[in-house]
Amino acid sequence: MPVYTAPVRDMQFILNDVMNIQSADIPGYADLDPEFLAAILNECGKLTADVLAPLNAIGDTQGCTLENGVVRTPDGFKDAFEQVKEGGWTGIDCDPEFGGQGLPYLIGTAVGEMFASSNMAFGMYQGLTHGAYSAIHAHGTQEQKETYLPKMVSCDWTGTMNLTEPHCGTDLGLMRTKAEPQADGTFKITGQKIFISAGEHDMSDNIIHLVLAKIPGGPEGVKGISLFIVPKFLVNDDGSLGARNSLSVGKIEEKMGIHGNATCVMNYDGATGYLLGQEHKGMRAMFTMMNEARLGVGLQGLAQAEVAYQNALAYAKDRLQGRDVTGAKNPDGPADPLIVHPDIRRNLMDQKSFIEGARALIFWAAQMIDQHHRSNDAQADGLVSLLIPVIKGFLTDRGFDMAVQAQQVYGGHGYIEEWGMSQFARDARIAMIYEGANGVQALDLVGRKLATDGGKHVMAFFEIVKSFIAENKEMDEEFQAAFLAPLKQASKDLQAATMYFMQSGTKNPNDALAGSYDYMHLFGHTALGFMWARMAKVAKTALENGTDDAAFNKTKLTTGHYYMAKQLPATGALLAKITAGSTPVMALTADQF
Amino acid sequence: MPVYTAPVRDMQFILNDVMNIQSADIPGYADLDPEFLAAILNECGKLTADVLAPLNAIGDTQGCTLENGVVRTPDGFKDAFEQVKEGGWTGIDCDPEFGGQGLPYLIGTAVGEMFASSNMAFGMYQGLTHGAYSAIHAHGTQEQKETYLPKMVSCDWTGTMNLTEPHCGTDLGLMRTKAEPQADGTFKITGQKIFISAGEHDMSDNIIHLVLAKIPGGPEGVKGISLFIVPKFLVNDDGSLGARNSLSVGKIEEKMGIHGNATCVMNYDGATGYLLGQEHKGMRAMFTMMNEARLGVGLQGLAQAEVAYQNALAYAKDRLQGRDVTGAKNPDGPADPLIVHPDIRRNLMDQKSFIEGARALIFWAAQMIDQHHRSNDAQADGLVSLLIPVIKGFLTDRGFDMAVQAQQVYGGHGYIEEWGMSQFARDARIAMIYEGANGVQALDLVGRKLATDGGKHVMAFFEIVKSFIAENKEMDEEFQAAFLAPLKQASKDLQAATMYFMQSGTKNPNDALAGSYDYMHLFGHTALGFMWARMAKVAKTALENGTDDAAFNKTKLTTGHYYMAKQLPATGALLAKITAGSTPVMALTADQF
Repeated sequence: MPVYTAPVRDMQFILNDVMNIQSADIPGYADLDPEFLAAILNECGKLTADVLAPLNAIGDTQGCTLENGVVRTPDGFKDAFEQVKEGGWTGIDCDPEFGGQGLPYLIGTAVGEMFASSNMAFGMYQGLTHGAYSAIHAHGTQEQKETYLPKMVSCDWTGTMNLTEPHCGTDLGLMRTKAEPQADGTFKITGQKIFISAGEHDMSDNIIHLVLAKIPGGPEGVKGISLFIVPKFLVNDDGSLGARNSLSVGKIEEKMGIHGNATCVMNYDGATGYLLGQEHKGMRAMFTMMNEARLGVGLQGLAQAEVAYQNALAYAKDRLQGRDVTGAKNPDGPADPLIVHPDIRRNLMDQKSFIEGARALIFWAAQMIDQHHRSNDAQADGLVSLLIPVIKGFLTDRGFDMAVQAQQVYGGHGYIEEWGMSQFARDARIAMIYEGANGVQALDLVGRKLATDGGKHVMAFFEIVKSFIAENKEMDEEFQAAFLAPLKQASKDLQAATMYFMQSGTKNPNDALAGSYDYMHLFGHTALGFMWARMAKVAKTALENGTDDAAFNKTKLTTGHYYMAKQLPATGALLAKITAGSTPVMALTADQF
Repeated sequence: MPVYTAPVRDMQFILNDVMNIQSADIPGYADLDPEFLAAILNECGKLTADVLAPLNAIGDTQGCTLENGVVRTPDGFKDAFEQVKEGGWTGIDCDPEFGGQGLPYLIGTAVGEMFASSNMAFGMYQGLTHGAYSAIHAHGTQEQKETYLPKMVSCDWTGTMNLTEPHCGTDLGLMRTKAEPQADGTFKITGQKIFISAGEHDMSDNIIHLVLAKIPGGPEGVKGISLFIVPKFLVNDDGSLGARNSLSVGKIEEKMGIHGNATCVMNYDGATGYLLGQEHKGMRAMFTMMNEARLGVGLQGLAQAEVAYQNALAYAKDRLQGRDVTGAKNPDGPADPLIVHPDIRRNLMDQKSFIEGARALIFWAAQMIDQHHRSNDAQADGLVSLLIPVIKGFLTDRGFDMAVQAQQVYGGHGYIEEWGMSQFARDARIAMIYEGANGVQALDLVGRKLATDGGKHVMAFFEIVKSFIAENKEMDEEFQAAFLAPLKQASKDLQAATMYFMQSGTKNPNDALAGSYDYMHLFGHTALGFMWARMAKVAKTALENGTDDAAFNKTKLTTGHYYMAKQLPATGALLAKITAGSTPVMALTADQF
């Protein structure tokens, strides 16, 4: 049975030592002194490890069941949800005006990682509520906010997002769900939505569905889509629950993973809906939450890698099999632990160096989201918008790969469900797909974000990396060779790929699009290389200054060295693939395949 | 619901056009004229597509059930097994002396791919029987052969391999199962074995377990292991079934995939066993079958990629979503099919170019196994033994990756079990683990096979590639640039890595072992690059000679170009990772992780 321990120490290192959040000059950050931070992280670590992690396998085995229109969540979920609500975790970074705790999004992100590691399917109930909260908070009228937000902040009511229909996923312009205006200003929503996570369940008194639909007579395609609030139970003027709305769950899907979360087909049969934001501006309203939603999914990739790694590491230390070729390490035992074997270490170090680099990248992005929201910093918004598809695509791809590698450490036992490693891989798999499949992230990155504001944001990224290298040119040779030189090379490869797209892609857009996936990975590796160089510098300086946690900082430096030496060389191959252009990709007609 | 069509045309191209098997001067190959070959492949294609493929999802959903010691296979499996037996497919490459059809192993491999694509869990029942058949055929007494083989060739009796115990997988020296000699020359086998595929089921009259166990008083570790025949029902002198043996199934495992195959815990309680081969030489007896067993698993990697690709391709042509950025391809429809999008093509071309290259590599290896067995060709045996860990490790890793990529083409539907793409990925996952986890393959390759006979076999591989390049130096510039130059570069990278291991690895074995996994992939890419160069040459020549199947040969050339341009650049990065050495891998103590 797998276990989970929240990586509090590592989070503290990033937040306190690398990012120095307390002095970051962002409203609210000054309050985040190390003691307060430690209290939050430790408390959340305890809750997720003791309450949520033990329910993870139960959620996977039991799944959700639908009977007579009622969805039952797995045993223990409801009780655990009550504990999460009582602890105030559901509204940690929500607006105090509506009962939230008003902490920065960055803290919500750290806490969110723990929820996603300990029980991804469970965490989605509150995660989706948070997404719906954000949409109403950003686009709702004051009345709508007052009606829905307090109950959603507390998760007495949960939320959903309804985008996909059977015939349209990425291409929402094909949407058929209709919203017919009524005399009283409401709309009658009619249509079928699929893949609705937490669409129906037994853990909340009401479910607030946000539904994309078309008002008849509006513009064609995505420009005619509007967003609606469609509650399961209508809400009376006094805030009490009224009539049941005309919507129902058609079925729940049998999925590869996240069995503890009910993925519903939702049928709207003239359900009462309330316009959220402006008519026909539904896509725009959705997009304002996109950065957070996609960061949240990237976080799931990291989170599943983290919990899978923890268990693989424990197994590698415990399981006795074979002998160290350079001499027995456990001579009195029947064999040495797995961890003596170089290839097992290669596997574990891949995981560890990815996870810690990815965590730093996500935290940096979360800080930029705070800078944007709390300081109205447009530059931070531009840069984080560029990084979001990288975070979503690269971290979920690699997070899944790492969960699969962790499973591999267990040998045959990794394939047996009882050991729990299969669940991590199966759960992690969805993160590559939902909230925009990773191919769509690559398209967003190369087809949209690169060129935004005349390419200003990617230039800003290069400038930041360049400045870091320049600022640290006095560091010793060892650091230069281990960190700065590989970072410089990766950044150079990324710049060359960017240049190739600008030159070749303008003549032939397919040259850019055919290389977009490789570019997303090239960017991801470079970004992680940059995070590692930053962290290594902090660790090295701490060691030179005689830190009282030498062990932690030494390990950090060594892990960073691994990433630079053993992962970053991928950038050269990715550049070569990109500059091979689109001809090999596009040469076949559809019939020739 | 996924479908399967046997890739007969592609197999014919490799066997007839590339390998020219009929004139290969291997006993039995001269009979393989194109008509005969077509008849076999088409017949098997029909059986696997019409009978086995439709049972694949049923097997996954129902799984096997254990009740009162009896294992029930999924609905339809038993009937299908009868059809497979009636068609003579179970003994296609078995010895005619025992009822087999005596066809080359190469043909068994082509047929085996179809079984593994259409229904991997089902195919394992006969696949494991074939493995046990081979062991008895190679090491049994004439009496043993006559007692067991005819029934195993027909699959009236099936077979299993019992190696793993709860505390020992790779490290079989830790084995505890005992074999106590009896006065009548038999042994009493006592112990528990786990992960026994097809250990118990309802499709055969008897199950012949091959069990590794230790005779008390024998040498320590793997040198004291012997191999035993332990039938479920003892066999009377007249060949009829006698008493039930003292063995039973303890439980069947809940697994990530291959649910249609019963993975059993087997308990032996003083069961009667018969020594197979010599006392204490059990490991050697197992190893004689290792090449075939591991090639068979590599084949599963390819096979799952093939069937996943077929369905992803069909979906990409059918599903309408978005528009071609260079102009609508389906202007009268609501959207263009997915296949217009460059990143979808990148995904599909990754799959297609892997699959066809992998098939050529496996068929080449199967031919070398025939050369060894039928012509006693030690050189072929040496080279194929070198390639086997590459085939097992690289093809199952990449096969799984490709099944995951195929799943990705489906977007959200890929995650829903009903669509079948999840099963391909889940089933493919086991191939990276069993028959020696892929890390063990890498160790076998670098720690054992590279140095065999003074490195003669890896040198032979380089020589073959070099000769091919030299023989084709008169080909036109386009071919040189697209195929020979990348092949040369990949081969150079592989040679550099080999040299690095020889120089650095002798001083520090960890330098070789820490890079072994990357080396396995570097070798795999180079081998597939070589296969593609060979196939491209044949296709190009056919086109120049005015072949009547220009479409097929053009597609082949284009697909090969894709592999060389878009996959082979990986070799440079792998070399860089390898030559970064073992320091970053080994630097942390176990406690520092």
